[in-house]
Amino acid sequence: MRTVEWYNNRVRMIDQRYLPVELRLVEYTDHTQVAEAIRTMVVRGAPAIGAAAAFGMALAAHNGPTESREKALAALQSAAELLMAARPTAVNLAWSVRQMLRCAESISEPTQIADTVLAAAQALADEDVAINRRLGAWGASLIQDGDTILHHCNTGALATVDFGTALGVIRTAHEQGKRVHVLVDETRPRLQGARLTAWELQQLGIPFTLIADNAAGHFMRTGQVQIVLVGADRVAANGDVANKIGTYKLAVVAQANGIPFYPCVPTSTIDLSLATGDEIPIEERPPDEVLGLTYHGQAVAPDGIAVANPAFDVTPYRYVTGIVTENGIAYPPLAVSLRRVVAGEDAERTAR
Amino acid sequence: MRTVEWYNNRVRMIDQRYLPVELRLVEYTDHTQVAEAIRTMVVRGAPAIGAAAAFGMALAAHNGPTESREKALAALQSAAELLMAARPTAVNLAWSVRQMLRCAESISEPTQIADTVLAAAQALADEDVAINRRLGAWGASLIQDGDTILHHCNTGALATVDFGTALGVIRTAHEQGKRVHVLVDETRPRLQGARLTAWELQQLGIPFTLIADNAAGHFMRTGQVQIVLVGADRVAANGDVANKIGTYKLAVVAQANGIPFYPCVPTSTIDLSLATGDEIPIEERPPDEVLGLTYHGQAVAPDGIAVANPAFDVTPYRYVTGIVTENGIAYPPLAVSLRRVVAGEDAERTAR
Repeated sequence: MRTVEWYNNRVRMIDQRYLPVELRLVEYTDHTQVAEAIRTMVVRGAPAIGAAAAFGMALAAHNGPTESREKALAALQSAAELLMAARPTAVNLAWSVRQMLRCAESISEPTQIADTVLAAAQALADEDVAINRRLGAWGASLIQDGDTILHHCNTGALATVDFGTALGVIRTAHEQGKRVHVLVDETRPRLQGARLTAWELQQLGIPFTLIADNAAGHFMRTGQVQIVLVGADRVAANGDVANKIGTYKLAVVAQANGIPFYPCVPTSTIDLSLATGDEIPIEERPPDEVLGLTYHGQAVAPDGIAVANPAFDVTPYRYVTGIVTENGIAYPPLAVSLRRVVAGEDAERTAR
Repeated sequence: MRTVEWYNNRVRMIDQRYLPVELRLVEYTDHTQVAEAIRTMVVRGAPAIGAAAAFGMALAAHNGPTESREKALAALQSAAELLMAARPTAVNLAWSVRQMLRCAESISEPTQIADTVLAAAQALADEDVAINRRLGAWGASLIQDGDTILHHCNTGALATVDFGTALGVIRTAHEQGKRVHVLVDETRPRLQGARLTAWELQQLGIPFTLIADNAAGHFMRTGQVQIVLVGADRVAANGDVANKIGTYKLAVVAQANGIPFYPCVPTSTIDLSLATGDEIPIEERPPDEVLGLTYHGQAVAPDGIAVANPAFDVTPYRYVTGIVTENGIAYPPLAVSLRRVVAGEDAERTAR
């Protein structure tokens, strides 16, 4: 089963808000439902959001007017805007929606638009899995037998259509017979590490230990971590990386301890239109993500207090050892190597 | 009301496990109950633990044999060992217990030991409050009108007998009329920031915003934090600081952003007998502190997984801007200045 797929003229997803307690599937017949599912994080993870939005465009085309090309395209344009507004930080969302729009615009016969967009969305989803496998193979070259890998948030099958980015690297290394151990950051506030990554690693039989995010520094400083692997939601042209809140602290502390720090992303996450990470919009999410906990049955904070909940942070390129993509590993100077991997030229690979 | 006090021949404490939902008081008649209360974190915070243990010794003396000095002292020695074993990291525990033992040993008449130890425990508790006020005055000199202060864990009245260490500094600045804003790290796993610090700041009317620990780096990098204040559980002779897990990451990221980082401690927290922080025992606490959460009503992790839960980390002295004590602010070289503040000689104070 894939995280997001087309099934019986519907978009079917795993509702990730119920894991690990329940594996619940949801089906949507309308692109507005898909936009809402992205906004409320039924589906999350930059590549998975991209695929979900592509299928949302397929639904919009499926349900849209066919009496004229203009009307069909106008309806798709409006669906595209709604979907792209669902979440601001991950660039894969706009990237996939624009791809579906361009595909629709290439068709002259309005009754053929729906099938064409659906085929394009299917291809994008299939390609996501293939990309992750290639990315996993590049990244696994960085992992040595016996390594302990520190991992933040969720970057597995659930964050993608299937297989995963940073977790795909870990999975590939595991499949290659390397003995790896994963330190899983629980990843407050939404606990994607505890809820999703721990669940996926358990299913895959890869050894791991769950930790509070605060403990990651202790394990790095005491020599218990060999490499830090994360995903990303957007990478700017200079190599600045927007990823789940907390990533920046990990990167700074990794560097202070001489531990390599590698974001693992499909090239669709690299946004060459942004010069630096300062231009990446950082989503502020609702306070209830921080407050909606109970600890041994009790509320965790007094009523009526102010909460700030930025969902992402930006790690400046100088803390990035390299960026693993499906086209190779980009090493500094990232302003040069990122353009090469996006263009599909294998980036120079240097020894770790 | 004090966090820990002697009342009607009992030790009375606020049971901090029920805040902010309920202000529940507990009373103990036996030192073994006090040791258990320290172990299970009914009372926590290095200075508060110190005072609780002193009153635990007073209970042991009160309940102990008086037929001979030898028997009385042997009973107290055994109580001391039990109390000191309750938690390993904070040095204040052993410091206060040893002080009570020395006091008992100075008495020749066994029937007078109980009253003498109780008087010493009372004096230690009163002195803790006085120390915090002096510490607060030194520390407040570092705070400027309009500052945003990042704070980790709980260092307020609840972590001490009254008034607090780092929160005492913030409170003093607030009382001086400086407009301050506190960014409150929720402090996983036990959420002392969300549960206790937010509650104390709310009571004091000091403006604050609660954040997930992961967000602290984002606020530091984007210029929204002027100073980081924390407490500590033990400071080694070279200035290495053991404090609540997550402190080390904050200190490293603060330095990377040119933000001053000040642990605030009574000199009883400075352990000149340890050359470096590598010798400080780091307590591993039960997995249920990480797993005992529900998030919007659901379990946060799969069953049966491995969890690591170190309760403290060590911040190397090179990340410490200065250490605020009741005897002045120790600045680098800390190996020199810490000895001076412990000896009660005001440390050289340099500009921030």
